[in-house]
Amino acid sequence: MNLDFAKLDGLLPAIVQDARTGEVLMLGFMNEQAYAETRASGAVTFYSRTRGKLWRKGEESGNVQEVKSIFYDCDADTILIRVNQIGGAACHEGYKSCFFRKLDPQTGRVDVIGNRLFDPKAVYKK
Amino acid sequence: MNLDFAKLDGLLPAIVQDARTGEVLMLGFMNEQAYAETRASGAVTFYSRTRGKLWRKGEESGNVQEVKSIFYDCDADTILIRVNQIGGAACHEGYKSCFFRKLDPQTGRVDVIGNRLFDPKAVYKK
Repeated sequence: MNLDFAKLDGLLPAIVQDARTGEVLMLGFMNEQAYAETRASGAVTFYSRTRGKLWRKGEESGNVQEVKSIFYDCDADTILIRVNQIGGAACHEGYKSCFFRKLDPQTGRVDVIGNRLFDPKAVYKK
Repeated sequence: MNLDFAKLDGLLPAIVQDARTGEVLMLGFMNEQAYAETRASGAVTFYSRTRGKLWRKGEESGNVQEVKSIFYDCDADTILIRVNQIGGAACHEGYKSCFFRKLDPQTGRVDVIGNRLFDPKAVYKK
């Protein structure tokens, strides 16, 4: 075990990046079990704090994230995973990246960047 | 204020990415004050949990991070900042990115990726 799961109450931030384009897709948290499952299965798996259990990213939408490579940082408390994003969109709102809101630091103006690749209502059927 | 600082005990993860190459350089945490300072100054500023105060990235090494653009995610609890990395290296160990360790998910083998751009001993004089 290279990572220090004793830090941050056992939940380390995991950045997910598109392996091909370098775009940052999302960030989730992993406990030791989620990290082990990600390594063993080859599909990014987080720990959901709100639901109190593991969740394989895309388990509902089908937009799973295939692990291409895993990095960790100098302090051994942050994970970076480069993936192949199945379905093209990581965000549950239908955008490629969860970071689709761009803020102007001076004015505070927010612009939406990128196009919706799917309709959340159709995918999640809520 | 667009971000939800009530979450995560008031400390939101902030991913720093090289605006030119897309390389993920590091991750730090920002409280509301650090975020305001980052916006106002144009230099990435975190909240240090270990030191209990704000720290401007590069304040000691000179390797400050000039803010190029700011994004936030669908849940309004993670920040992505694209920067111009002064000095070329973000990591206090002298590497361009803090994520210089690559893990083989199957074997657990770790390889160091990238070259040291500076000697930490010379820069930090510890």
